[in-house]
Amino acid sequence: VRAVVLTDAGLTFDAAYPEPKPKRGEVIVRVLRAGICGTDLEMLRGYKGFRGVPGHEFVGVVEGCDDCPSLVGKRVVGEINVGCGECARCQSVGPGHCSTREVMGLIARDGAFAEKVSLPIGNLFVVDDAVAEERTVFAEPLAAALHILWQVSVAKRDRVVVLGPGRLGRLVAMVLRRHTPDLTLVGRSDAVPDDPDLVIDCTGTPEGFARAVECAGPLGTVVLKSTCAGDATVPASLLTKIVVNENDVIGSRCGSRENFEDAATMLVSGDIDPSPLVEATYRLEDFARAFAHAARPGALKVLFDPTL
Amino acid sequence: VRAVVLTDAGLTFDAAYPEPKPKRGEVIVRVLRAGICGTDLEMLRGYKGFRGVPGHEFVGVVEGCDDCPSLVGKRVVGEINVGCGECARCQSVGPGHCSTREVMGLIARDGAFAEKVSLPIGNLFVVDDAVAEERTVFAEPLAAALHILWQVSVAKRDRVVVLGPGRLGRLVAMVLRRHTPDLTLVGRSDAVPDDPDLVIDCTGTPEGFARAVECAGPLGTVVLKSTCAGDATVPASLLTKIVVNENDVIGSRCGSRENFEDAATMLVSGDIDPSPLVEATYRLEDFARAFAHAARPGALKVLFDPTL
Repeated sequence: VRAVVLTDAGLTFDAAYPEPKPKRGEVIVRVLRAGICGTDLEMLRGYKGFRGVPGHEFVGVVEGCDDCPSLVGKRVVGEINVGCGECARCQSVGPGHCSTREVMGLIARDGAFAEKVSLPIGNLFVVDDAVAEERTVFAEPLAAALHILWQVSVAKRDRVVVLGPGRLGRLVAMVLRRHTPDLTLVGRSDAVPDDPDLVIDCTGTPEGFARAVECAGPLGTVVLKSTCAGDATVPASLLTKIVVNENDVIGSRCGSRENFEDAATMLVSGDIDPSPLVEATYRLEDFARAFAHAARPGALKVLFDPTL
Repeated sequence: VRAVVLTDAGLTFDAAYPEPKPKRGEVIVRVLRAGICGTDLEMLRGYKGFRGVPGHEFVGVVEGCDDCPSLVGKRVVGEINVGCGECARCQSVGPGHCSTREVMGLIARDGAFAEKVSLPIGNLFVVDDAVAEERTVFAEPLAAALHILWQVSVAKRDRVVVLGPGRLGRLVAMVLRRHTPDLTLVGRSDAVPDDPDLVIDCTGTPEGFARAVECAGPLGTVVLKSTCAGDATVPASLLTKIVVNENDVIGSRCGSRENFEDAATMLVSGDIDPSPLVEATYRLEDFARAFAHAARPGALKVLFDPTL
């Protein structure tokens, strides 16, 4: 299959990458659209040391499935974590914290920047064919944004600040604005409102973390929503600030299965429509231009269309 | 009065420091014992830029009080924050997060390393004369340890790790062991049990924070209980770890009024007796030896006895 592949030599295009080989209980999905996320950009800088096909945001069509003929031809989005299914964490909180998990496009499993990808049946959620792929491709990042509401409560009087008006920050803002009108999306040179109750760091930079802690103030909650790669450091004085202000700093990663289901439902119903965040769509062959575009400061969502 | 004073030139002894001048609603307390805490040591290295008499852990006797004659001669411990009393934070959570607060021995208010100290009547809690000063002098750090239980729940099946077996770590361990039998107090070269539910960092070092995050693991909670001074840094990769593992990192500082009341009650009843942590008691004049002793690696509690 045609695929974008991360190798020791960097990102390449392979016109004849091996067909995905579905394991027991898995199906082949033909990818219609796949989105580039900040974590994909960081992987290029060495984060996680992943080798293979990146891409963990997608919408596709089930191509073939012996165990589930009714799924064939269905439009699907998919949860990206594949756990052992048997450990205490898989049983209690799902595959996202399984110590032997695979994650499509991120850990030990090929992802969606290819014509086809394999995933367990149980990871898939059917979405309506009639909804534009530019909308349903947001299922994974939307689930991740919805996950914040599983970790912290946001009520209508809460003052929320989202740092980083990029693709992730804007999506998080769309989700949280449904819970409070008092939300400010803040860029690098914007002023921050005083004394917010909750600050979500979507900058993916150590400076963003510092700014989040600075502006959270006494008893404020900070959600860290994006990872930072590289050898950067943050001043230990920020830790002292967290102690003195008694902040609550919460790491937030993927959506759970339930968040995914909610995300798929909201995208299909149109309750949330992030498709205006799509800035450009590229062929797999044009991976270098696509990644360069996604890496531009302020760039919003860049997609691959593997059918082109 | 005789006092230990932090000046631009460093820590000094002053045999004739000005008598404390009680403001309206305040009383003079004659100090019987005062404890040296990690924060006092950090102030010597520049933390907070405080100038004046340090010391915020004490037990004393009320010397005179026009508004409250019944308090005169009573043995007391005292809450250290003095807020404006009128802002939203003073009204809701008490003086500890008032933006104009004074804190005895730490911010804009003389502390207890002196023969006498002034505090508002409302900050004082009467304790039984019959209980040894070596025990009641722990009211402030015990309230700070109890405060953890206001921030996180600790149930009998929880696996708790306390990093830093110093004076603070041991006190925290005494408090939390009442809630779970599965608590391990871990020193620099000790192994950490796998997969704890809760890690309390009492090391006061950036390395301690790093170790706390490393050992907390997926979905683990980290309480930062001690501040670190200086220009140290921590790797930003720890922030990524917090995101990927979805940790909850909670800053924890002073006890509230209610924690203080509980602490005083528990010390008087003997439910908790930290007096075995006292390693030495010094005269105010011997401040240099006292601080050097408290700064030794592994040193436990060092007291001043201003009556000597």
